[in-house]
Amino acid sequence: MNMIKAGIIGATGYAGVELLRILSTHPYAQVSAVSSVSFEGKPISEVYPNLCGIRDDMLGDEDDVIQNSEVVFAAMPHGLSEPLARKCVDAGKKFIDLGADFRLTSPEEYEQWYGLSYKDPALHSKAVYCIPELHRASAAGKEIIANPGCYPTSIALGLAPAVKEGIVRVNSVIIDSKSGATGAGRGLAQNTHYPDCNEAFAPYKVASHRHTPEIEQTLSELAGEEVKITFVPHLLPVNRGIVSTMYADLKKKMGLEEVHRLYQEFYKDERFVRVMEPGKIANLRNVKYSNYCDISLHTDERTGRLIVVSTIDNMVKGAAGQAIQNMNLMFGLDESAGLKMIPPAF
Amino acid sequence: MNMIKAGIIGATGYAGVELLRILSTHPYAQVSAVSSVSFEGKPISEVYPNLCGIRDDMLGDEDDVIQNSEVVFAAMPHGLSEPLARKCVDAGKKFIDLGADFRLTSPEEYEQWYGLSYKDPALHSKAVYCIPELHRASAAGKEIIANPGCYPTSIALGLAPAVKEGIVRVNSVIIDSKSGATGAGRGLAQNTHYPDCNEAFAPYKVASHRHTPEIEQTLSELAGEEVKITFVPHLLPVNRGIVSTMYADLKKKMGLEEVHRLYQEFYKDERFVRVMEPGKIANLRNVKYSNYCDISLHTDERTGRLIVVSTIDNMVKGAAGQAIQNMNLMFGLDESAGLKMIPPAF
Amino acid sequence: MNMIKAGIIGATGYAGVELLRILSTHPYAQVSAVSSVSFEGKPISEVYPNLCGIRDDMLGDEDDVIQNSEVVFAAMPHGLSEPLARKCVDAGKKFIDLGADFRLTSPEEYEQWYGLSYKDPALHSKAVYCIPELHRASAAGKEIIANPGCYPTSIALGLAPAVKEGIVRVNSVIIDSKSGATGAGRGLAQNTHYPDCNEAFAPYKVASHRHTPEIEQTLSELAGEEVKITFVPHLLPVNRGIVSTMYADLKKKMGLEEVHRLYQEFYKDERFVRVMEPGKIANLRNVKYSNYCDISLHTDERTGRLIVVSTIDNMVKGAAGQAIQNMNLMFGLDESAGLKMIPPAF
Amino acid sequence: MNMIKAGIIGATGYAGVELLRILSTHPYAQVSAVSSVSFEGKPISEVYPNLCGIRDDMLGDEDDVIQNSEVVFAAMPHGLSEPLARKCVDAGKKFIDLGADFRLTSPEEYEQWYGLSYKDPALHSKAVYCIPELHRASAAGKEIIANPGCYPTSIALGLAPAVKEGIVRVNSVIIDSKSGATGAGRGLAQNTHYPDCNEAFAPYKVASHRHTPEIEQTLSELAGEEVKITFVPHLLPVNRGIVSTMYADLKKKMGLEEVHRLYQEFYKDERFVRVMEPGKIANLRNVKYSNYCDISLHTDERTGRLIVVSTIDNMVKGAAGQAIQNMNLMFGLDESAGLKMIPPAF
Repeated sequence: MNMIKAGIIGATGYAGVELLRILSTHPYAQVSAVSSVSFEGKPISEVYPNLCGIRDDMLGDEDDVIQNSEVVFAAMPHGLSEPLARKCVDAGKKFIDLGADFRLTSPEEYEQWYGLSYKDPALHSKAVYCIPELHRASAAGKEIIANPGCYPTSIALGLAPAVKEGIVRVNSVIIDSKSGATGAGRGLAQNTHYPDCNEAFAPYKVASHRHTPEIEQTLSELAGEEVKITFVPHLLPVNRGIVSTMYADLKKKMGLEEVHRLYQEFYKDERFVRVMEPGKIANLRNVKYSNYCDISLHTDERTGRLIVVSTIDNMVKGAAGQAIQNMNLMFGLDESAGLKMIPPAF
Repeated sequence: MNMIKAGIIGATGYAGVELLRILSTHPYAQVSAVSSVSFEGKPISEVYPNLCGIRDDMLGDEDDVIQNSEVVFAAMPHGLSEPLARKCVDAGKKFIDLGADFRLTSPEEYEQWYGLSYKDPALHSKAVYCIPELHRASAAGKEIIANPGCYPTSIALGLAPAVKEGIVRVNSVIIDSKSGATGAGRGLAQNTHYPDCNEAFAPYKVASHRHTPEIEQTLSELAGEEVKITFVPHLLPVNRGIVSTMYADLKKKMGLEEVHRLYQEFYKDERFVRVMEPGKIANLRNVKYSNYCDISLHTDERTGRLIVVSTIDNMVKGAAGQAIQNMNLMFGLDESAGLKMIPPAF
Repeated sequence: MNMIKAGIIGATGYAGVELLRILSTHPYAQVSAVSSVSFEGKPISEVYPNLCGIRDDMLGDEDDVIQNSEVVFAAMPHGLSEPLARKCVDAGKKFIDLGADFRLTSPEEYEQWYGLSYKDPALHSKAVYCIPELHRASAAGKEIIANPGCYPTSIALGLAPAVKEGIVRVNSVIIDSKSGATGAGRGLAQNTHYPDCNEAFAPYKVASHRHTPEIEQTLSELAGEEVKITFVPHLLPVNRGIVSTMYADLKKKMGLEEVHRLYQEFYKDERFVRVMEPGKIANLRNVKYSNYCDISLHTDERTGRLIVVSTIDNMVKGAAGQAIQNMNLMFGLDESAGLKMIPPAF
Repeated sequence: MNMIKAGIIGATGYAGVELLRILSTHPYAQVSAVSSVSFEGKPISEVYPNLCGIRDDMLGDEDDVIQNSEVVFAAMPHGLSEPLARKCVDAGKKFIDLGADFRLTSPEEYEQWYGLSYKDPALHSKAVYCIPELHRASAAGKEIIANPGCYPTSIALGLAPAVKEGIVRVNSVIIDSKSGATGAGRGLAQNTHYPDCNEAFAPYKVASHRHTPEIEQTLSELAGEEVKITFVPHLLPVNRGIVSTMYADLKKKMGLEEVHRLYQEFYKDERFVRVMEPGKIANLRNVKYSNYCDISLHTDERTGRLIVVSTIDNMVKGAAGQAIQNMNLMFGLDESAGLKMIPPAF
């Protein structure tokens, strides 16, 4: 079998370089070209010395990437993906967008939360938002995949069974998420300056984070009704990982065992979702550097609430790993190809 | 003025040694005796070399402490304070308990959550639970003060204005708290082993932490009705600090400015509570090593919820600092005496 | 090709569980059995929930491991390996010892530093101490491999070219090493209690660490004369990684370029040693989770000294990874089989 | 007694804001004015929210500070202090420079290491470099004090007794220092970006750091001969603290007890230097947030070397605290005034 030629636009961002790392050991794909606006003309190992002698690929421009690839991953800030996607579609290349520009099906919501409008609406009909465990059926034959955001992945996987099966009041959902500092990217900023971030902790963009409509879009589809949730992200002094602690009122009294069976059943065929035994608690330590999502379930009998804790590695299942899972899906491969990394104990 | 003679039982625990440190620079009190079951007969600076040459006090037993002090602080695991309090009361010494044994007014709740019963009920009528900002009026003339728990302090201060003024539905309250590792104490445990705790994050005792009834007791008093809340604590990979992110349904639509005014008014005479300007966000970085509680306010207009973020240093306002504030209150001193530490920037 | 059956004695220690993780993706080997004294009878995923659903191997005893394996890895405290090695040799199984019991060729030094004597001297003639880059020639046909210690690996690789080529005065060598907390193992201890280890830094076992004779043994062989060095290890508040900063007087004035060429030449065929370009500085960040050793070279022209910085992942090249490299060597495989992990950028 | 009016130029840098914090509780001094180029016209609490409600001083310009102060602290990058000092001297104000511009007595060395020349040589005769424990005698009557660098403070205090008493070969001295990230300042940089600095460790400016000539200047004075040392600093993933591990050949065999007595005698009247008992090891944990310098002594009998470990808080004894100690000295106060902070246990 020929190796799939995969290119990365924006390879020196955190999601981009993680894609490069994981794709480099993929059994059926190889990285064919990488680009960077800031570092064009340099080997990527000059920016990331961890790659020295392993991946010294020269950073080119986006056209180099598109020309030399069958599938193009774009890991760019929002607002830049439409023209890239257009070039890929016209050139018959598949396009996987790690940015936000194809995630929202509603142009109004995109405009409201991102302050930009879709310029090339025809593209959006060729695109699908895809958390494979929830949307793989609708991904068939699509040319563009919108790779989900990190928070929305942890949240949608954690709430899907409860919302889909209708055991919780969807408008009672409150989501308290905590993300490691790589979620803020490679760019320098005061709140990720080491002395500011270390031995510190706070929420940010309280009830105003751009992932909110993406979360609501998925939950609304699952619920079959419009859902509004409260979402508060926090910056956690670790490099990697997201923990989402989620609260919802149970429609009727349910024991933990019953909820657990429902989740087990929902995810019984999924390799990357681990529904933990009752009594266990999800910890980001156990999924770091892997494509797993660990989910633990808890009931607060005193108040009639369900509490779901969902954790992923924000850079793997929350970004690069899931993008590769989506690539596998697009090319009809085993979804876990290249993603068999076992989370280390420490 | 004579210096108040203050003794510490359990001085080698984290709360105990922090008491010793802060009391050592108190203008009107001095540490007269310290005890430790594990290290009796050794100087405390052998256990804590940071104190070497500064506080080389010999560790004695509890009777040494009681005999040599006007006020006794006990920083012991729960279940051990009643006999200590009895000795103090009988000897005419004031008693400030940093443990849990005098916090709950309901013997039933104490039994339910701690698995123990009150042996000396007469003592409890001499005791008062006291977060000074909320309960100082009722502390007058009491011989025993139950110093509040760390989580309950951050939570009660954060919710008091909203609950007291009746702007939120009290039974909608959800509390997602995160505490630094000193909260778990000096004792060795797997989850505070460095490689387990570093680069990790998870909740623990989900909806089952013993601080739950203490939180509900305070909120119920403030609300004038029985309150049941959902409380989930998390272990944060930092040494110090608690952040509580709290969610509640607003009874009626209220703007952020209006909520802010209400909080400002409520705390206008308080030195240690800082209600942050609208738009600012509380961060534990800004209160570390101080007795401050920072509170930031946020509204989620889309869902009609109030979000309060409250942060303290768990070892100061959450333990030793508040205990000294209570001592000041007991002795009629300025509450801030000895507590003027300015939080460092880093 | 049949998969090599590899067993792990002491699989629940940090080196053991890291072996299990890495071996699980080895193309030519599979983990056949695992044992643990403390957790016998439980699945290893109960001790390490990161392995849940991936490696739920039941923990047996040492005899289960030996019986079911072609090669046995022992990751045990010192003093326990001889009887295990004896059983393996008698049963015709290869034995790779991650402990210290076969590292020192001199029984006197072993006794002096470890306080124990060799009970089964015949075994030691079947054993070889092997950092593959330095000793692979002598490993041929040996039944027992003594896998080197973490510090000695970083140090020997960093100094070998300089010492072998005789460009430094060997008795001027001073080694200042810093190791992440996993180096201290899974056992609970005060200095690896999170609040003690976090935001802290200090040396330990100053000029008295047991790795000293192992370091000197290798350097003496390379130098062809007896070498005595000063070695001071420090505990670094990170999970993984060792950085050794090493100082030696140059016998005669040499430019950095010249030293660099000598190192490049020495390691020109080595996959796992990266001699960095002049001007670059080795950082443990770049080798974490990989089998690489990064070496940077520096000269202090003002004092005529050579400074070598060598960094490895203490649990991979410093323990489990190198043990697998040694297994590959024993079985005539490509040394890098199963060890192609690319160090992540973060 | 009137409070001394102290002003801070460069108050929003890390050393500046630490000065403000510590001076705020000084019994005999008060902060009269603060300035900042970047944030002029804003209250400092807007830049440092930890100060909110405590120090809301408006940031002015340098002339505001000079005019309103009796003593001016300047915490600026090198190259900017001479004109400030000139203004202060002309206006009869004392000047304490936390920068590097008055530290080196040799204009040639300043030019060589900083690439700048002294413009106002007359000023330098009014200035003295002062680590109080070593230079207080020569500080009498000086109008300008050059406050020492952080590394040089930890190193000079650690080596002074050995060098002054002539027990080590001064040109054998090798210094391996490790500093927390606040040492790099408030300015954003890639190597202090959280994901780059966390779980990472490396040296920087190997044998080329600008503190080298300052270290050598002090050691040369103490030794009475020209000293050349090797100095390698490392970036430590903690906020605060420096540990310097120092190696020197003993001129003749000396036992640890003998060295210890010599150090004890040398520092017997010093409040801020703690010579630890033989067998103890200095740890930055024990001096954080205090003005102490802890020194532990070790001998490597096998190689005839002395090993000294010296640790300080880089922002206190290494910057702001020592500057205040120097102010106390200038004004004839008890040197420890305002500096009685007890290092916390965690």
